[in-house]
Amino acid sequence: MFQIIEFPVMTADAEVRGLPIGIFDSGIGGLTVLSAVHRRLARECCLYLGDTARLPYGTKSRGTVVRYALQAAEKLVERRIKLLVVACNTATAAALPDLQKAFAPLPVIGVVEPGARAACTVVSGKKHGGNILILGTESTVNSRAYDKAIHALRPDAEVRGVACTLFVPMAEEGWLTGPIAELTAARYLAPVIGEEAGHNRFRPDCIVLGCTHFPPLAGAVASVAGPEPVIIDSAETTAEAVEQELTRLNLLRQTGDSNDPPASGCLRFLTTDAPERFARVGGIFLNAPLNPENVELVSL
Amino acid sequence: MFQIIEFPVMTADAEVRGLPIGIFDSGIGGLTVLSAVHRRLARECCLYLGDTARLPYGTKSRGTVVRYALQAAEKLVERRIKLLVVACNTATAAALPDLQKAFAPLPVIGVVEPGARAACTVVSGKKHGGNILILGTESTVNSRAYDKAIHALRPDAEVRGVACTLFVPMAEEGWLTGPIAELTAARYLAPVIGEEAGHNRFRPDCIVLGCTHFPPLAGAVASVAGPEPVIIDSAETTAEAVEQELTRLNLLRQTGDSNDPPASGCLRFLTTDAPERFARVGGIFLNAPLNPENVELVSL
Repeated sequence: MFQIIEFPVMTADAEVRGLPIGIFDSGIGGLTVLSAVHRRLARECCLYLGDTARLPYGTKSRGTVVRYALQAAEKLVERRIKLLVVACNTATAAALPDLQKAFAPLPVIGVVEPGARAACTVVSGKKHGGNILILGTESTVNSRAYDKAIHALRPDAEVRGVACTLFVPMAEEGWLTGPIAELTAARYLAPVIGEEAGHNRFRPDCIVLGCTHFPPLAGAVASVAGPEPVIIDSAETTAEAVEQELTRLNLLRQTGDSNDPPASGCLRFLTTDAPERFARVGGIFLNAPLNPENVELVSL
Repeated sequence: MFQIIEFPVMTADAEVRGLPIGIFDSGIGGLTVLSAVHRRLARECCLYLGDTARLPYGTKSRGTVVRYALQAAEKLVERRIKLLVVACNTATAAALPDLQKAFAPLPVIGVVEPGARAACTVVSGKKHGGNILILGTESTVNSRAYDKAIHALRPDAEVRGVACTLFVPMAEEGWLTGPIAELTAARYLAPVIGEEAGHNRFRPDCIVLGCTHFPPLAGAVASVAGPEPVIIDSAETTAEAVEQELTRLNLLRQTGDSNDPPASGCLRFLTTDAPERFARVGGIFLNAPLNPENVELVSL
């Protein structure tokens, strides 16, 4: 069903280094990852695809998410990219191996492994294995993808997951602070980490924001969790992984590599529905205005 | 693109009368309409399709909603139905004429016109035209479909619309009462009907719940709006319209018409994703447990 497009990633020449990094998400949450990649690798071009027509992925079945992820990735590969970032926890948890297989040898990086690695670094000083709380969509939490990635690095860590379904539309609505955001965080978290949990109370050393929609709500999470747990936003650690992989493959853009554009990086956006809404809500996640004219409508 | 399936609705015989009523929605909100139809017409069979793989429709563009609605309707028509209910305000506002044209002579009933008619009945005693507040999705409110339907009946009514985007996932999460639901209702409504609106304050005679997801949140709306405005749930008025249309066409099921099942009506469910979730969340809207075995997964 998916045509394998020949991709000259192994001939790491100037042309390939000049290609953009492809980033996709079910919607706009992945812009937090784009933003981190752009800050870290300012000279790289990024091509972002938000599958807004079919969001959210987080309440869909694994099979459906795999199908959607393959279609979204194919659209980016058609436009030519040098590396693919799956900037969606749900899609990473469900489809990363399928994507790596379908588009090999294109390097494909997800957000789960970098987030898990960062969490393990936080708890590395603990005598016991460390307590890690994962906040994600229903699909990500049910997949136990973080549990597996963490236990591969640190088998004795204790991992719990909480599905925070309403965080996604709340972030998209821009309701990031104030009583509604805090009460919502409390409703999800208190039964696990609050006093009402009684002797089952979980005391996390770190909390992973396991959905790219969640970083704007970090303050609301902290208002419930208190100052002790370290809150991990996998956007930063994913950007670090992207840099490491491009360095390893000698694919970082170098002076004179490409003529499009000559010096600094650029950002381009594709969306499967409602470009104006993408630009308006996207600004919340990019933390900068997004011109609707830079958003192209595509069909998957 | 859409094959017109020959439909013998004009030969109103026993076989056609025995066919189910088809009902579709982007997800599970339309179950409030199904429930009202089933209460009113207990001997009819209903075939419900929830396009859960692609929900929500309410933040998508008109073109996308029309395409999805035609595909969903086609799936129900393939299974043979005698009348189609578009139990989704967004789809009704965007696609009702397209659906009526594509599947003629199948009768197609939407939820907007019955809701508008009910609102006009409420304000019919007012000397001035009456103040009507529409709560809906972003797409429904932007379409001004209720404004047009109300003004066709009552040109001097004043109509305002408020997009209550978070009500949809909040209803699906089952957060129907309590401080989060009430604060959310206040955040959407107070700028229009609260004291903070100052001299622009709108004093509605009636409030239309213009999204099939909203009836479970009627209490939260009332907590903000106070006891005066009449709150209209278009599910009931849509069920009334279905009965009138079936009566007019002599398509109400009669004793001995059909052998499947012999006496009382039955409900069947199709969903485009995650049947277990459909059954679990659907119970909130049907106000009765829904057995996952009665939910069939289909692809559009």
